[in-house]
Amino acid sequence: MYQPSEHSVQLVTTDAFVEGVHFDLTYTSLKHLGWKAMAANLSDIAAMGGEPRYAVISLALPSKITIELVEQLYDGIAAACKAYSCLLVGGDTVASLANMFISITLTGEARKEHVVYRNGAKVGDVVCVSGHLGASQAGLKVLQREKTRYNQSEQQEQFQPNLSPYTTVLEKHLMPRPRLDIAKLLRENVTVHSMIDISDGLASELHRISRASGTGFRIEESAIPLHENTRSVASEFSEHPVDYALYGGEDYELLFTLDEAEAEKLKSLTDDVVRIGKVVSRNDGIELVKQNGETVAVPFGGWEHFRG
Amino acid sequence: MYQPSEHSVQLVTTDAFVEGVHFDLTYTSLKHLGWKAMAANLSDIAAMGGEPRYAVISLALPSKITIELVEQLYDGIAAACKAYSCLLVGGDTVASLANMFISITLTGEARKEHVVYRNGAKVGDVVCVSGHLGASQAGLKVLQREKTRYNQSEQQEQFQPNLSPYTTVLEKHLMPRPRLDIAKLLRENVTVHSMIDISDGLASELHRISRASGTGFRIEESAIPLHENTRSVASEFSEHPVDYALYGGEDYELLFTLDEAEAEKLKSLTDDVVRIGKVVSRNDGIELVKQNGETVAVPFGGWEHFRG
Repeated sequence: MYQPSEHSVQLVTTDAFVEGVHFDLTYTSLKHLGWKAMAANLSDIAAMGGEPRYAVISLALPSKITIELVEQLYDGIAAACKAYSCLLVGGDTVASLANMFISITLTGEARKEHVVYRNGAKVGDVVCVSGHLGASQAGLKVLQREKTRYNQSEQQEQFQPNLSPYTTVLEKHLMPRPRLDIAKLLRENVTVHSMIDISDGLASELHRISRASGTGFRIEESAIPLHENTRSVASEFSEHPVDYALYGGEDYELLFTLDEAEAEKLKSLTDDVVRIGKVVSRNDGIELVKQNGETVAVPFGGWEHFRG
Repeated sequence: MYQPSEHSVQLVTTDAFVEGVHFDLTYTSLKHLGWKAMAANLSDIAAMGGEPRYAVISLALPSKITIELVEQLYDGIAAACKAYSCLLVGGDTVASLANMFISITLTGEARKEHVVYRNGAKVGDVVCVSGHLGASQAGLKVLQREKTRYNQSEQQEQFQPNLSPYTTVLEKHLMPRPRLDIAKLLRENVTVHSMIDISDGLASELHRISRASGTGFRIEESAIPLHENTRSVASEFSEHPVDYALYGGEDYELLFTLDEAEAEKLKSLTDDVVRIGKVVSRNDGIELVKQNGETVAVPFGGWEHFRG
């Protein structure tokens, strides 16, 4: 129960996570899961230009989840609430016969004039993203490989996962940091036309803004920000790191569009945002200009459709 | 996204339902499930003295749930939203490997001075409930019996469940009506000290108010409102209908306390609320005065602890 500020609007978002679909308890600790479920919701509020306020949590717990594990989950949730200044105000915890399920609903607040939608992109806008992309997918690849190695090892009790060279991508996968800092920077300094958070991969999010705004995109492959750690993991798996960015998901960075002058202003304020392309007419579709100059359409679906 | 009225506070509630724990798709249609999941949340808002505003829904769907079934679920949700003037504004739908899961979060609004809590009961207050209790449990008993008969029948394709004599209790179980009407009547006419909705049975809710308010209760067994249909089902099963009221749950009626003068005022305004007892000191515990004059403690747990 709370009283909102005057002249502000309320925002609300919800995200659901299912064991075996969205997380695997063999390599995700409950603490990380709690953090990540909060982070996904916080990221939605950031993408609307708002500030988080109050969270409620629904949990369905199978009997294998002990009280200690539930406490770890709440530790992760509490850590994220503390880090991003929101308050857990309630929830419902029920039994589940099989898998664990967690759903978080988060309210937020924004001044009316600061709310950003997906449908405001304009032809000619500069397209920007925060941080770097694909790292979460790289982290997941490493965790899955170590799980397979563990399952195949003959002496499991002596198994040591090989994780130390991968700190950046593992942190990005297990403890993503919603970009409320970037949302605040944008709100206070520039006018953004459209924004979304990158929860399902850059390709999906470009398609979503495209559908909502009635525009196309022309994205420069070479401009997509990739961490060196992401590049090296992709190289180990003989995959393209750009595919991790386009189709990996769970990076929780922001994708937004704004006009040229505002983009210039932003450039002087932060190094943590890069331009990756331009908004073009809907007829031009969503295109990626590859490093060799070739132009390819970016499909909505997974990368199996992309590299052909 | 919405702008709340001035001088009002926002309320938020969430409820989760798990297949196999809270519902059984062999005798609950998806339409009824959608209605009921909304009703549970609407009932929480009623119990806080508020009016519902916006709902978001998280769904985890196993592959057996077809698009048609999901549409039925949304039909039920939409029917409840329409009946009780709230708006479904979003949600998250994800895959589930095993059971179906649904979680609804509902926001509400109330004027600050109208919000009612669980912690305001005062010694000497009159205890009231709306409607009648135990009917949802009676409806569930009938549905479970017919499921067993169906499973045991030799010609299942010709099986006809025997449901027609049980309309009242079946409707109460499958399509419970949250008492926003009573919440409004109370808000506009009397001052209520404490209130809760009866989602888990009268016994649990008395214990919850007791814990929050630091009081005890003295409840007259003969005053607990029971529908004749509930009595006849209990009789068929050789059970006590009062046990259905105390431990059955899912009635979604309101339990509240108010002082004697306010209770008198209310009596002249509606026949749909009855007095069932008084608030007493915490030391007196939660007692039921049976029809034979004997006084017994009302345990929090199920009725197996109660009838001994």
